[in-house]
Amino acid sequence: MNQLAITKQIIPFFLTLQNRICDALESADGGKTFQEDIWQRGDSGRGSTRVLRNGRIFEQAGVNFSYIHGDTLNASATAHRPELTGRSFKAIGVSLVVHPKNPYIPTSHANVRFFIAEKADSAPIWWFGGGFDLTPYYGFTEDALHWHRTAEALCRPFGHDVYPRYKRWCDDYFFLKHRNEARGIGGIFFDDLNTPDFMQAFAFTRAIGQGYLDAYLPIVERRRALHWGERERQFQLYRRGRYVEFNLIWDRGTLFGLQSDGRTESILISMPPLVRWEYNAKPAPNSPEEALYHNFLTARDWLNENC
Amino acid sequence: MNQLAITKQIIPFFLTLQNRICDALESADGGKTFQEDIWQRGDSGRGSTRVLRNGRIFEQAGVNFSYIHGDTLNASATAHRPELTGRSFKAIGVSLVVHPKNPYIPTSHANVRFFIAEKADSAPIWWFGGGFDLTPYYGFTEDALHWHRTAEALCRPFGHDVYPRYKRWCDDYFFLKHRNEARGIGGIFFDDLNTPDFMQAFAFTRAIGQGYLDAYLPIVERRRALHWGERERQFQLYRRGRYVEFNLIWDRGTLFGLQSDGRTESILISMPPLVRWEYNAKPAPNSPEEALYHNFLTARDWLNENC
Repeated sequence: MNQLAITKQIIPFFLTLQNRICDALESADGGKTFQEDIWQRGDSGRGSTRVLRNGRIFEQAGVNFSYIHGDTLNASATAHRPELTGRSFKAIGVSLVVHPKNPYIPTSHANVRFFIAEKADSAPIWWFGGGFDLTPYYGFTEDALHWHRTAEALCRPFGHDVYPRYKRWCDDYFFLKHRNEARGIGGIFFDDLNTPDFMQAFAFTRAIGQGYLDAYLPIVERRRALHWGERERQFQLYRRGRYVEFNLIWDRGTLFGLQSDGRTESILISMPPLVRWEYNAKPAPNSPEEALYHNFLTARDWLNENC
Repeated sequence: MNQLAITKQIIPFFLTLQNRICDALESADGGKTFQEDIWQRGDSGRGSTRVLRNGRIFEQAGVNFSYIHGDTLNASATAHRPELTGRSFKAIGVSLVVHPKNPYIPTSHANVRFFIAEKADSAPIWWFGGGFDLTPYYGFTEDALHWHRTAEALCRPFGHDVYPRYKRWCDDYFFLKHRNEARGIGGIFFDDLNTPDFMQAFAFTRAIGQGYLDAYLPIVERRRALHWGERERQFQLYRRGRYVEFNLIWDRGTLFGLQSDGRTESILISMPPLVRWEYNAKPAPNSPEEALYHNFLTARDWLNENC
């Protein structure tokens, strides 16, 4: 692991991934294209923020590339890894959130990232992280199975224990403790990955980043023609409130970005374009809205229950 | 300071204040009334949450009374006061947020609270806190002056240094660090108040709680007839996003509630009913929207500049 690998392998991978995802989302949308802002924050970072808005399918899709660095890692990064304290760092990543217009198409999120923390006269500490997770408004077993089967297939070449471990980590991570409720149906989440070696960890991260499209786009295709009305729209806007609550209260990535003096507009591209809160809202008994809570937001073991 | 004072003086004051504020807001609205939920959470607390929705003037107003207690204060309460660690506590308060429909009427927030932290064989540690602050969407100097003059007049009997000190504390507290932007035009904020004695601290807290209506209602009356359209509505929805960001990322009261296993629906009654985010939105040059940022969200010293 050295600067050469960062320049020649890691940055090109992330930039290519951003391009590939934007191209695929544009094709799926068939209406609008991404607008790009290239930004630089003094000596502390640079990036490219791409946003597609008011598309035929996507109400908003944001795909960020960023490369930030600093003299010290902040509290949200060192809280669980004290050995990082006092090290300079570089963080490179691609992060995206897609908010479709049709409430039958789930919101999706994916992120892949590389960190390196350095100190004079010490070996660098590096790791990869990432994953993808799905947040439906209306649950479809078929979609949940496709999502998790795709995740499992991407993980399998790296060991049979990889998917179950990272699936569980995803369920644990994307959880709203203040509501005792899952954000969505999960997927995979990994962090602190530096085993068995750089090449394998990087290959796994590439597989996850590239595999996101195979997990998500078939679901978009399957649901895009479903008719929806005001009822579904209102429930979608309401549930988007949970997305906001998770990202602003619990998400380490968001807090890391805001605490590192990141570019706020790029970080908060994850916010849905329109959101509703309603005091003490309860879904009607035996409604599809209630089924979402009962059957989908419950950290289920999809593949072992249903295969 | 003892249990008798809590039972005979403090709780009755807070309950009466909740009634008085709800009555006054209902009168001002002239349409809808408050609906009440009385709640209890095991042994750890109880409260009354009152919500008025879709009124003629108020899109949503939430007025909470709560009395919570526990064996240990959580991190958000002890971080700046380590002497409280390991003490049991009681927290009693009234908290409210009013989101008007008309974008020319500002959102307002007020809170008064009493804490007591106890340990065997030690004197109890008690304090009051509270304040009120105003968040306009369109700025009016006349309203800002009225708001701050009312605050100053409420503080004056308690000392000439009280208003400037608590005005500044309010500006410091209601600040979005990740945007380097004030939440609104401030008001007053105080905490840890236990001087000069219980009676005086309680009297000050009563003055602030009761004075909120004198600060806010004349502004509602002055702006309620102003005509507004889609442009003003869209800007209001957009600016409400800042309210959400502040409350979920920075507000100690919100975090304290969520960390103390509080009643989430009551705590998050502060969330606006409808909110919009827009990537990199910029107000048009020389517009009233730009004037809000330039002339109102800047922690101004209203009374000394203008009187």
